[in-house]
Amino acid sequence: MQTLQEKASQWSGVDTADAFAIDDTNMFQKLGLQIFINLSTNFYTRVYDDEEEEWFRSIFSNSKKEEAIQNQYEFFVQRMGGPPLYSQRKGHPALIARHRPFPVTHQAAERWLYHMEKALESTPDIDADSRVKMMNFFRHTAFFLVAGDELKTQKQQIPCKHAASKPAES
Amino acid sequence: MQTLQEKASQWSGVDTADAFAIDDTNMFQKLGLQIFINLSTNFYTRVYDDEEEEWFRSIFSNSKKEEAIQNQYEFFVQRMGGPPLYSQRKGHPALIARHRPFPVTHQAAERWLYHMEKALESTPDIDADSRVKMMNFFRHTAFFLVAGDELKTQKQQIPCKHAASKPAES
Repeated sequence: MQTLQEKASQWSGVDTADAFAIDDTNMFQKLGLQIFINLSTNFYTRVYDDEEEEWFRSIFSNSKKEEAIQNQYEFFVQRMGGPPLYSQRKGHPALIARHRPFPVTHQAAERWLYHMEKALESTPDIDADSRVKMMNFFRHTAFFLVAGDELKTQKQQIPCKHAASKPAES
Repeated sequence: MQTLQEKASQWSGVDTADAFAIDDTNMFQKLGLQIFINLSTNFYTRVYDDEEEEWFRSIFSNSKKEEAIQNQYEFFVQRMGGPPLYSQRKGHPALIARHRPFPVTHQAAERWLYHMEKALESTPDIDADSRVKMMNFFRHTAFFLVAGDELKTQKQQIPCKHAASKPAES
């Protein structure tokens, strides 16, 4: 059986080493807090204004834009070498579990990445090397979450299969 | 509805600030790689030798001890200020999702913590301050995972709604 990581690499076309090249240099020290805030603001402004793909925008309709921005940039800052803002406020990122309420399909991953690429290109002061590294990280992570989303379906089948409660296979 | 974090704090008795006091100083720089390897080796030796609570040991019966040790110390090193060893090898920690195969009950959390406390006390060169900080982090995290474990049950009920059990509360 393929691991989450193997699925993420296969579907994204980004291998693990390239995805985690964000750790080669301290991106937070290089870019600073304000650029991360600007990037996430730029990204979610595009998402909440996505009139071309209403199905995508509707995924976020139960979330407040300001909160979505904060959750995102705090996680990015923490993951890319900055202070652990996200954990101090919300605990472990637990990326897959926290995406459970959302339908993280291949199509949704691609639309997320489409907006993120535009946001990265149009946020001032993000150099080309950082942009490439972040995009590889985001692409791999998006498909890691698609792989994680499939776990929901796998697990759902268990209790229905035999009508009751046979122990789960590991 | 309580968040994962709120449940973790309530059940563990450790608030978020105390749990993430591991970030106040760089624990990896303070302790070094070898101490993390020793701690996890000590911990899993106790777990795999747990003859008092066979139900607990059996949770790990499908996992190789050497691999369990490596997964654990690589995550601890990464989370406590060291190089991102875990992600380079396995991707995002995704703590809740990766614990899905295991029954992370309140009782299992307590037994895990029992062994970890013993391991912390008997691993040489871990100072008292680090021990307290790590134990708070572990205690909070263990119950964060218990809270995460409950998501499995919530989700399982959905497809069975008309076949058997009561509908899931959101």
